[in-house]
Amino acid sequence: MGLQQGEDLELCLSVAVDAAKKAGQVILNSFHKAKAVELKGMHDLVTETDKACEEAIFKQLREAFESHKFIGEETSSIDGIPLLTDAPTWVVDPLDGTTNFVHRFPFVCVSIGLVINKVPVVGVVYNPILDELFTGIEGKGAFLNGERIYASSQESIENALLATEVGVKRDTVTVDRTTNLLNQLMYKVRSLRLSGSCAMNLCGLACGRLDLFYEIGFGGPWDVAAGTLILREAGGLVFDPHGGEFDMMSHLIAASNGHLKQALVEGMAGLV
Amino acid sequence: MGLQQGEDLELCLSVAVDAAKKAGQVILNSFHKAKAVELKGMHDLVTETDKACEEAIFKQLREAFESHKFIGEETSSIDGIPLLTDAPTWVVDPLDGTTNFVHRFPFVCVSIGLVINKVPVVGVVYNPILDELFTGIEGKGAFLNGERIYASSQESIENALLATEVGVKRDTVTVDRTTNLLNQLMYKVRSLRLSGSCAMNLCGLACGRLDLFYEIGFGGPWDVAAGTLILREAGGLVFDPHGGEFDMMSHLIAASNGHLKQALVEGMAGLV
Repeated sequence: MGLQQGEDLELCLSVAVDAAKKAGQVILNSFHKAKAVELKGMHDLVTETDKACEEAIFKQLREAFESHKFIGEETSSIDGIPLLTDAPTWVVDPLDGTTNFVHRFPFVCVSIGLVINKVPVVGVVYNPILDELFTGIEGKGAFLNGERIYASSQESIENALLATEVGVKRDTVTVDRTTNLLNQLMYKVRSLRLSGSCAMNLCGLACGRLDLFYEIGFGGPWDVAAGTLILREAGGLVFDPHGGEFDMMSHLIAASNGHLKQALVEGMAGLV
Repeated sequence: MGLQQGEDLELCLSVAVDAAKKAGQVILNSFHKAKAVELKGMHDLVTETDKACEEAIFKQLREAFESHKFIGEETSSIDGIPLLTDAPTWVVDPLDGTTNFVHRFPFVCVSIGLVINKVPVVGVVYNPILDELFTGIEGKGAFLNGERIYASSQESIENALLATEVGVKRDTVTVDRTTNLLNQLMYKVRSLRLSGSCAMNLCGLACGRLDLFYEIGFGGPWDVAAGTLILREAGGLVFDPHGGEFDMMSHLIAASNGHLKQALVEGMAGLV
């Protein structure tokens, strides 16, 4: 990657951090208030705050990067998910963890990723409640509030803390697979955490709080564009639950620190 | 309850808050450092910090309340759980969420309850990472950082956020019951959270972040003495998973806001 492009990515990060912090302030201001909730599905919520934040983030990014493309969770829920091209594309979840936001459970965040040639190269995840700002640029490491972070060094799956989510679907096939996976993995890992934000789970791995993560049926590329860049820059691995290459449009994600990929893939075998 | 006793409970709360904040500072100071971990069971961890905090809390409480009795998680793990009598007894978990502490996952707390005639009358739960101090005195309401808190007003289980934990046992009967319960309840509730601290779950209900909670096989009375008092003072309900009276020595707990007890008991029916 040429120097000019490297400089551009620093600028991209700077604008994205500014947009994330402004949206984070909007989330923080309304966090303790009652919210009007709409349902995208029976278990998939959206609020006015999600929409207002997406508009504000898009406006700010568009002003700085006129020629770039944009994919956002709320826009996509109306218009469908646009095709991801090789062009520089901002992939944005204005409020990851909407259920947490509605209930005032403190794992909520703004997630902003820049994807070029279908690969995330800049990522910002900001949790305004815990005031945690995770950032990363391809090849330049991952940071939490400005300090370099690293995935855990845990090499034994039996000492690993595993994060996952139950998602928003409640058909029998999904629910049975969800609980069968939990059953199979409970024998292998130390414990399980379900905290309601895909992007925060990826950043939790990036700073070594969590060792493993998977989610079958996550919402869309906005949940993972920033977090996967940050995790990889922290030395973590992101992959398909079968162990193959991760596809951010696939709705299937697994992730580990630098050591436990094979153990997680084996732990999930037969059920994904 | 007479005036003299009321005054005493204020004093008890004040000393307990002071002890909890001091222990919290010890937890905070070591939170981001690597920890030497011992195993009480394969999935049940203890650190030097748990032990140091219990000693410090007991010392401070003993100095203030010479005649009172004491039950602590770490002391009990060596000597066995003392019989709970009618005498004023401090029931203490110096560090609830030890696995979280080891992994730096931010749900950890100090839990200090005063139990008289086998009923909790004073409770303090302090999370030093989030700087959340939950307090309550019987009949005088529950508070978070000095502000009155209330359980949620949610009346529909399908809109409820349910907290639970997978606990520390990994025998087939336990693991199957755990995942069968999750399976059954996933069809009924909005979503699930597993965040690794029983006391924080009870306080999460008390401030309306969570609507429902159960744990089959929680550690001991130290996990629940303070949290159940705080939740009840916030208008929540604590009960046996079958709907009967809660027994803090039973290792079985269920809890709800003021409306959803029956729905949770029905939701768990056949599996507890």
